[in-house]
Amino acid sequence: MSNTVRSTTRTVSKKKTNGYQVIGTRPIRHDGLDKVTGRALYGADVRLSGMLHGRILRSPHAHAIIKSIDTSGAEALPGVKAVVTARDLPALSDKIADLGEGAVNLRDLSTNVLAAGKVLYHGHAVAAVAATSPHIAEEAIQLIRVGYEVLQPVLDVRAAMKPGVPLLHPTLTMESLGKKTNRVSNVASHSQMKKGDVARGFQKADVVLEREFQTATVHQGYIEPHNATAQWNADGSVTVWCSTQGAFITRSQVAELLKLPVSRVRVVPMEIGGGFGGKIQVYIEPVAALLSRAAGRPVQITMSRAEVFMGTGPTPGSYIRVKMGATGEGRLVAAEAYLAYEAGAFPGSPVGAGAMCIFAPYNIENVLIDAYDVVVNKPRTSAYRAPGATNAAMASETVIDELAEQLRMDPLDFRLKNGAQEGDTRADGPAFARIGYLETVQAAKAHAHASAPLEGRCRGRGVASGFWMNYGGQSSAVANVNPDGTLTLVEGSTDIGGTRASAAMQAAEVLGLRAEEVRPLVGDTESIGYTEVTGGSRTTFATGWAAYEAAQDVKRQMIERAAKLWEITAADVDFADATFTNRKEPSKKMTFKEVAARLGETGGPVVGRAAVHPSGVGVAFATHVVDVEVDPDTGKVTLLRYTAVQDAGRAIHPSYVEGQMQGGVVQGIGWALNEEYAYDGQGRMINASFLDYRMPTSLDLPMIDTVIVEVPNPGHPYGVRGVGEVPIVPPPAAIANAIYRAIGVRMRVLPMSPRRILEALGKA
Amino acid sequence: MSNTVRSTTRTVSKKKTNGYQVIGTRPIRHDGLDKVTGRALYGADVRLSGMLHGRILRSPHAHAIIKSIDTSGAEALPGVKAVVTARDLPALSDKIADLGEGAVNLRDLSTNVLAAGKVLYHGHAVAAVAATSPHIAEEAIQLIRVGYEVLQPVLDVRAAMKPGVPLLHPTLTMESLGKKTNRVSNVASHSQMKKGDVARGFQKADVVLEREFQTATVHQGYIEPHNATAQWNADGSVTVWCSTQGAFITRSQVAELLKLPVSRVRVVPMEIGGGFGGKIQVYIEPVAALLSRAAGRPVQITMSRAEVFMGTGPTPGSYIRVKMGATGEGRLVAAEAYLAYEAGAFPGSPVGAGAMCIFAPYNIENVLIDAYDVVVNKPRTSAYRAPGATNAAMASETVIDELAEQLRMDPLDFRLKNGAQEGDTRADGPAFARIGYLETVQAAKAHAHASAPLEGRCRGRGVASGFWMNYGGQSSAVANVNPDGTLTLVEGSTDIGGTRASAAMQAAEVLGLRAEEVRPLVGDTESIGYTEVTGGSRTTFATGWAAYEAAQDVKRQMIERAAKLWEITAADVDFADATFTNRKEPSKKMTFKEVAARLGETGGPVVGRAAVHPSGVGVAFATHVVDVEVDPDTGKVTLLRYTAVQDAGRAIHPSYVEGQMQGGVVQGIGWALNEEYAYDGQGRMINASFLDYRMPTSLDLPMIDTVIVEVPNPGHPYGVRGVGEVPIVPPPAAIANAIYRAIGVRMRVLPMSPRRILEALGKA
Repeated sequence: MSNTVRSTTRTVSKKKTNGYQVIGTRPIRHDGLDKVTGRALYGADVRLSGMLHGRILRSPHAHAIIKSIDTSGAEALPGVKAVVTARDLPALSDKIADLGEGAVNLRDLSTNVLAAGKVLYHGHAVAAVAATSPHIAEEAIQLIRVGYEVLQPVLDVRAAMKPGVPLLHPTLTMESLGKKTNRVSNVASHSQMKKGDVARGFQKADVVLEREFQTATVHQGYIEPHNATAQWNADGSVTVWCSTQGAFITRSQVAELLKLPVSRVRVVPMEIGGGFGGKIQVYIEPVAALLSRAAGRPVQITMSRAEVFMGTGPTPGSYIRVKMGATGEGRLVAAEAYLAYEAGAFPGSPVGAGAMCIFAPYNIENVLIDAYDVVVNKPRTSAYRAPGATNAAMASETVIDELAEQLRMDPLDFRLKNGAQEGDTRADGPAFARIGYLETVQAAKAHAHASAPLEGRCRGRGVASGFWMNYGGQSSAVANVNPDGTLTLVEGSTDIGGTRASAAMQAAEVLGLRAEEVRPLVGDTESIGYTEVTGGSRTTFATGWAAYEAAQDVKRQMIERAAKLWEITAADVDFADATFTNRKEPSKKMTFKEVAARLGETGGPVVGRAAVHPSGVGVAFATHVVDVEVDPDTGKVTLLRYTAVQDAGRAIHPSYVEGQMQGGVVQGIGWALNEEYAYDGQGRMINASFLDYRMPTSLDLPMIDTVIVEVPNPGHPYGVRGVGEVPIVPPPAAIANAIYRAIGVRMRVLPMSPRRILEALGKA
Repeated sequence: MSNTVRSTTRTVSKKKTNGYQVIGTRPIRHDGLDKVTGRALYGADVRLSGMLHGRILRSPHAHAIIKSIDTSGAEALPGVKAVVTARDLPALSDKIADLGEGAVNLRDLSTNVLAAGKVLYHGHAVAAVAATSPHIAEEAIQLIRVGYEVLQPVLDVRAAMKPGVPLLHPTLTMESLGKKTNRVSNVASHSQMKKGDVARGFQKADVVLEREFQTATVHQGYIEPHNATAQWNADGSVTVWCSTQGAFITRSQVAELLKLPVSRVRVVPMEIGGGFGGKIQVYIEPVAALLSRAAGRPVQITMSRAEVFMGTGPTPGSYIRVKMGATGEGRLVAAEAYLAYEAGAFPGSPVGAGAMCIFAPYNIENVLIDAYDVVVNKPRTSAYRAPGATNAAMASETVIDELAEQLRMDPLDFRLKNGAQEGDTRADGPAFARIGYLETVQAAKAHAHASAPLEGRCRGRGVASGFWMNYGGQSSAVANVNPDGTLTLVEGSTDIGGTRASAAMQAAEVLGLRAEEVRPLVGDTESIGYTEVTGGSRTTFATGWAAYEAAQDVKRQMIERAAKLWEITAADVDFADATFTNRKEPSKKMTFKEVAARLGETGGPVVGRAAVHPSGVGVAFATHVVDVEVDPDTGKVTLLRYTAVQDAGRAIHPSYVEGQMQGGVVQGIGWALNEEYAYDGQGRMINASFLDYRMPTSLDLPMIDTVIVEVPNPGHPYGVRGVGEVPIVPPPAAIANAIYRAIGVRMRVLPMSPRRILEALGKA
């Protein structure tokens, strides 16, 4: 088609051209203009008549018993319309609910929203106020008197596991290998994955290395703070407008926490300024609802940046120990890992996912992984882009690098020798379908970057790989044919990284339309069927699939309409390239537009619908190459060049795949070099601002080159795997490996900040 | 079901109980709470950042040539951001487009929106301004200088038809019996309907009466004035929020007038405070769009009440002549009618519909009807509840009354003798399917009102019948199953009279849910498939049918899910009363809720969809009985008692059927007794306010008793006919007949105001 531009220059594909008309092209995203012109509406843009402003009072202590809360001062302040505390939340049982993104303990969720009995981290929400202005609300929360009995905080995962330390939850008993024990501690669970016999495996190894690692607590750093506007209606139903990765999971959580049927809660997802996993758990949504119920007016709460850092879920700091063994010929024979992740104030770190990922790129016969989920006095963690995998890869991929070094093998060749392929099994069980890991390593090796000379002092090149499982889940879509032959597509996925475009393109491909001829719309919980979160790299995969199926449903009906106009049977109608052909008289043709213009006379509108829960999720692999220069005087690491290779399965919109890859790399770089939650001796966070919590800016970054490998996922009609998560996994390890090549020091603690580099150089 | 209340006390049904669980019950309407608590959002509630306020400059003359428009004064006023005139509208051809509610001449539509060359009525829009405040906009339109050459106006339909009168459109040639002629006049068209041989028919008659009638121009009088907010987007698309009876027809009109593809126009229907046919044509929507394009900011225009009267479409004044003949035994043998309706400034009065309705309740062998569509210097007429039929029934139903009198027959018995039945044909062709006209007459006769004594001076009882064709048209619906077993129902029909409820109830009936368990939502043009206007009594019929089909689609899928859970085939699953039964093991049962809770594990969400364009539209008949008292000193008519009987086919929600009946009667009473557009000698409307345009208030009205007759429409799954329009048809004739019984004077000019009654009494 003349009006689309096919770009394959940076794509390594099995085919020279991908055989599609829309898929693989780069149209302007449908929501682009709205966003660059300021027309797009975000949660903080919501304005309702009589709307009040809410503010949250947060704990100044990391660990304390709440002895008393006196809200009378706040209630007496003119302009204050409602004050709520945990007493206003329904009592919830210890029920574990699957709300669509893993199991959640409802009582924990509730107690995180408003602290009951104890505060468990600095910034834990204690009470909330709604007032006629944000300033009055701010003043009012200062008038709430909370009596605390301050306790010793526990801030480090290894310290928290020691006997005799203060306990966050005096009734928390450990789950061990799937079974509840009587052991009361800060360790919420211990799980294990096993394959082969590691002891025997290590016996076969000629080289065995065992190393220890620590990673810091880091935040997703989305640009838009959390916000929620709630209106409690006269009939006891509630409407919530908010920034969420998934309206339906927000609906589920609000319904569970307020003990309402889900059909009494309507969630309207506004545009979202980033989420990365951090906008799945609810924080202020139920509080805004409670305030609205109490005040009888709509209430809006928006977080400050400090509240985002202190009161929402970062990804855990962790302690990891890895032991790996290889034969002299470079064959990996055994791997063992011990992972302990900080869950924050409540159980639920992604340590299980870390364990599933840590050795996944490699076909190793004998594997043993122990994973510990540990509570500490930090904010309850939440998902962050391939949650748990980056911590794990920092450990395994630097050990792989060290093994290759000791075996005098090129690190990419070492990976090619041991890399997982179709049919290989992971330590957690599943065998891989067709995967593209080796293709990413080959593409990295073939890239000019891998062989480019790197001269100069204190410079080094590192490589690392990464793995992520991806997720499928449920999605719905509805497609309506307009009389001008265009399509509207209603789907339920919050659009973070261009998924309106990637869903619309999959529908367009089915019908031979241009991407622009499909107008995607994100519905709320009452206007579209159940759809899980935009997360897990699932949206282009599953919601795109729903769009594909809805378009197929449209196609079937349009063929029937063409048949009706020709007075033949549907079986005698061919459809290709947006054109219907009469098989009985092949000279008779009608375009999609022509048939669309005549729907009124052939039976009325055409509405296509689909709902999917696909099983053939395609896993994702990435291999990164990075060049660094280390300043030995300051310890500062400068990135000189970065190349990210990734198997996308099929890149629906290559620009947005590249954008995901670049974005993931940037976050991985921040995690590698600078980002960390800093605490004082009392467990108070001391860097809750973008000035002090150092994320990379464009000035800190080189151009991040991307190579999309396309090994189609056999489990998706177009081969989509999902691309959002895996690019964050390799960067810290790749950079650590590059730093080693630059200055001869193996860094094993994140972030590899100037101070740590200097310390390491001093030691070396 | 224990929690629904079945009310059949006032329903005359073929069955004692209707056999349904939800249909025929009276749940609280789903939008009721939102509306009574002020939460529902109407067009004037729309607030967008940077929004400007638009005002329209209107012609002070009824008929004039525009010599010049100087907008420089307005443009120079600080705060004015845009000024537009007809020059800003694209030139349109004389194309007749079917925009979903009858044929529309696009150039006329455009010229009505902003006058080009000539102004054709007092209040015709000439220019528009957008400014930062409504006050500045108001000031600015006063600064626009328009040079007019004033022409003689033509205000009466018969005067307009005379040779030599001023012509509104010097190029308008008459269409006669479907063919264009060369005759230039104010007569836009003459059409004819013929059946049998009237001359021969009248020869058989023993009694022949011929009478003349006039009816006044009257307005729908909806409580909410027109409003439109438009945002012209950076990509050339436009979004319009407005008060409309149909978002899709507004989209079509805006697209045609601005020469945009329909997919570039998004129309968001806000709640609507009444329409009655008057909110189908666009007036300010394209103007707001033009202003927004010019200003680069959103623009909102709201009309004042005076603008609504002067600038939107009332229903036509008319001149009608009726001649009818009957045998001495009371058999109607011939009927002839001449109808001339005022189209207002552009062709398109509902005279054709009037002609179709005028004799439709009766089986008459010989009929001849001539219908004339005539332009006059009044606002372009638009639809108003059974458009054209009330005028016609005023004529035919008073002649029927007079014939019965002369034949010394009871007027209801006369109707029973001549009433149309299944198989009888209308003058315009179609034969009736099963209809319930005679049943309405029988029910009226059986009602206590018909035989109640009516004593006292100047009191009289009148009866009259009415007919309306009803309409089918296209509707779409999508239904989503929630995990708690409730359903959301997205449909495209603006809810004016409770159609969220009547659509939801039809879906609920299919699935055995309660009405409250289906949450209906009205989508905009991008979130639901094509759906025609809420009008033509079509919404409960066609959108309800779409809801029924969408629920059937859900049912089929839910049966498959139950089969999957039981590991049997769908054919082995029974579904009844919201319960699935395993035919293989009939003791195994699952509720709808249980299966709904397990959709995730059985294949994902269930989305049902439907689009319909039904053909089996059921026509509507009504028979009314009214008692009046006339004050011979003042001419004031007081209504003592009113009973309206109507065949609803099937009353989905009897309360809203009754509401439609009562509302139609009230409007018919206003039309009968007081309402009329009053003009001065220059054709300027002099009563454009609710103080001077006298609509009935509750103090003017008796309790309006309603009797729902249910003769199911064989063309609808539940027998629905549509109920909104026909109740406005009988009142003027019934009241005229009652006045005759009270004071012995046959009133043949509407309104039958005190002045006219006194005049008539003086003459008598």
